[in-house]
Amino acid sequence: MTALNEDTVTAPVTDEEIFTAHEGGKLGVAVTKPLADPRSLAIAYTPGVAKVSSAIARDPKLAERYTWASRLVAVVSDGTAVLGLGDIGAAASLPVMEGKAALFKTFGGLDSIPLVLETTDVDEIVETLVRLRPSFGAVNLEDVSAPRCFELEAKLIEALDCPVMHDDQHGTAIVLLAALRGANKVLSRDLGGQRVVIAGAGAAGIACAKILLAAGVGDITLLDSRGIIHPDRDGLNPIKREMAAVTNKAGLRGGQAEALDGADVFVGLSAGKLPVELVGAMSPDPIVFALSNPEPEIHPAVAARHAAIVATGRSDFPNQINNVLAFPGIFRGALDSGARRITEGMKLAAADAILGVAEEDLAADRIVPSALDPRVAPEVAAAVARAAKEDGVA
Amino acid sequence: MTALNEDTVTAPVTDEEIFTAHEGGKLGVAVTKPLADPRSLAIAYTPGVAKVSSAIARDPKLAERYTWASRLVAVVSDGTAVLGLGDIGAAASLPVMEGKAALFKTFGGLDSIPLVLETTDVDEIVETLVRLRPSFGAVNLEDVSAPRCFELEAKLIEALDCPVMHDDQHGTAIVLLAALRGANKVLSRDLGGQRVVIAGAGAAGIACAKILLAAGVGDITLLDSRGIIHPDRDGLNPIKREMAAVTNKAGLRGGQAEALDGADVFVGLSAGKLPVELVGAMSPDPIVFALSNPEPEIHPAVAARHAAIVATGRSDFPNQINNVLAFPGIFRGALDSGARRITEGMKLAAADAILGVAEEDLAADRIVPSALDPRVAPEVAAAVARAAKEDGVA
Repeated sequence: MTALNEDTVTAPVTDEEIFTAHEGGKLGVAVTKPLADPRSLAIAYTPGVAKVSSAIARDPKLAERYTWASRLVAVVSDGTAVLGLGDIGAAASLPVMEGKAALFKTFGGLDSIPLVLETTDVDEIVETLVRLRPSFGAVNLEDVSAPRCFELEAKLIEALDCPVMHDDQHGTAIVLLAALRGANKVLSRDLGGQRVVIAGAGAAGIACAKILLAAGVGDITLLDSRGIIHPDRDGLNPIKREMAAVTNKAGLRGGQAEALDGADVFVGLSAGKLPVELVGAMSPDPIVFALSNPEPEIHPAVAARHAAIVATGRSDFPNQINNVLAFPGIFRGALDSGARRITEGMKLAAADAILGVAEEDLAADRIVPSALDPRVAPEVAAAVARAAKEDGVA
Repeated sequence: MTALNEDTVTAPVTDEEIFTAHEGGKLGVAVTKPLADPRSLAIAYTPGVAKVSSAIARDPKLAERYTWASRLVAVVSDGTAVLGLGDIGAAASLPVMEGKAALFKTFGGLDSIPLVLETTDVDEIVETLVRLRPSFGAVNLEDVSAPRCFELEAKLIEALDCPVMHDDQHGTAIVLLAALRGANKVLSRDLGGQRVVIAGAGAAGIACAKILLAAGVGDITLLDSRGIIHPDRDGLNPIKREMAAVTNKAGLRGGQAEALDGADVFVGLSAGKLPVELVGAMSPDPIVFALSNPEPEIHPAVAARHAAIVATGRSDFPNQINNVLAFPGIFRGALDSGARRITEGMKLAAADAILGVAEEDLAADRIVPSALDPRVAPEVAAAVARAAKEDGVA
């Protein structure tokens, strides 16, 4: 493991740096066919453009070829669950969506536009995107609160004939799966024999539980703010009730302490705290993923007193579990292949591809590739495009 | 006048050139703050961006400063009146909207995104843009059919606290006014004494009539497909009825021939034909603006047998009356000044500024600046920003 102690810090980013970098926003529109002279104007605008519009009117499939929409991702949010800040509204969520669009461009080579909505009504959001359908080629849902996000994603997938993915759910889940497989590989362990505790039953927690179940995990203990989710609990919302039926084979009751006792893996997604004693009470040499940002549930150096492998969501510690490893390549692969939707097979293929890039030099402090590794998105895109064809959606 | 005969052609633009130039569309998204390393990622995305989002949540005015939205124009269409192609639908209108966005960038330095809508219901379009309000800073309506465009623009201006302009109406009208003033200056004539025939009572025709009335034209004879619009005609829609009350002081009845008899100016906006004999029947040495695209109502060389000054909408003849002289500078000036809406004063100021650039070397074949003249948009923007302040909307 690289040098890591409890005082590890990088030169702190100052508020001045942050606000200066955000002046005027972080995106611009670029003209890919310069309008330098009357001739280029006659080609790209009147009268030339009329031929292209007429051709699309006759054959709507040509829109894919002759407009930017088929490769454009709409980054959509209603601002109800922005980072760890909660429901701060559409306007305040926009800097995050601009950042997301910048990541799509930088890592996936994809154009995307933030569309932030001043409504939190699921049906109104669906209706808005249905009306705008010819304007984009895919939808990245972002920072929508649970449990609304589950209903919204399901309804959008139903209503739109294009890839739709709520990244807070599936991007997180895909990278988590890749990281957990990487950690198990380093430790020569098998997911099928492990009990994983997931602290947090919001968008990310539910999606992580689902993808681990699909990947054949031994057991999952899912925690929300009231403790372990189990079928006897009152007042569970529909998605938690659904999860109660397929998790907790061990039949545990109680809170975080009861959940962690003897557990093999901890996945923190709740902005809670994980006391070091509870890590000590896990099975020997456990795996700890303290993924809350900006403050992990436990400092990685503290967790490492007991844990064999530690990961966080932060770039200034080893093993950063960051969605950026997944979403640029997933949308790129989906759009490259002309996929009509994003299947479970495509998500699992993405996790495999992320692990594949790390596998060459896998180590306890390198269970996933760096978030800035330029090999990741192309590998993920290729794997996702193949899976789309195999699953018959492209 | 430069050499101009009935055979004047430029090297024709081929279909192959046009379609090749449209492969993949004409726009891209650019990242203005590169994400090259972990530090820039920490500034532009997590955790840095959380500070910016929090600041906007506390003080919504900061969204203007720290997002791209306040300088972003939504180019909005429902595809119901695209160029001369008519109601070809949203998807087929997209290449035109991409071209418009390219013009905004090239001439106004403004970012813009096409939003094409698969609904033609005025209230649904308004509702959609109200929901998306935090995503943009201004609305350029484009290629919406008359008379719906009048209602849509009025409702959007009412519903949104930002600049909204239907360019087919006002962009055309502003450039027309600049051109007519330029022509009158060359000929030492005065708008106040002139009767102008406007052929076409759609979006552009109505707006041209209104701006000429505001500018103090002597009289207007407005023609639609059934002939001269006058108060005794049955079945006039509300906007034509309104125009019937304020135009046609001469009390004319009949069609194009009756309208042109003795008229000083012809403005063609109808894709109809103007026989040369009717130009001969106008007042001596008239002004003929044959603006239909791609086929002018009369070939400029033919019109020139009788007319003192001829203009068209085409770039391959002198005196091109093209909206691009107006809209980039108008939106730029409106956004630079923080204007909440676009007033009549701002439109008239734009026309003055366009004429101002041409005035240095005004001639019969140079009544407006070239569409590619880089001085125009900044001059228009400055004039519009001043007018916004004078009108108390900025």
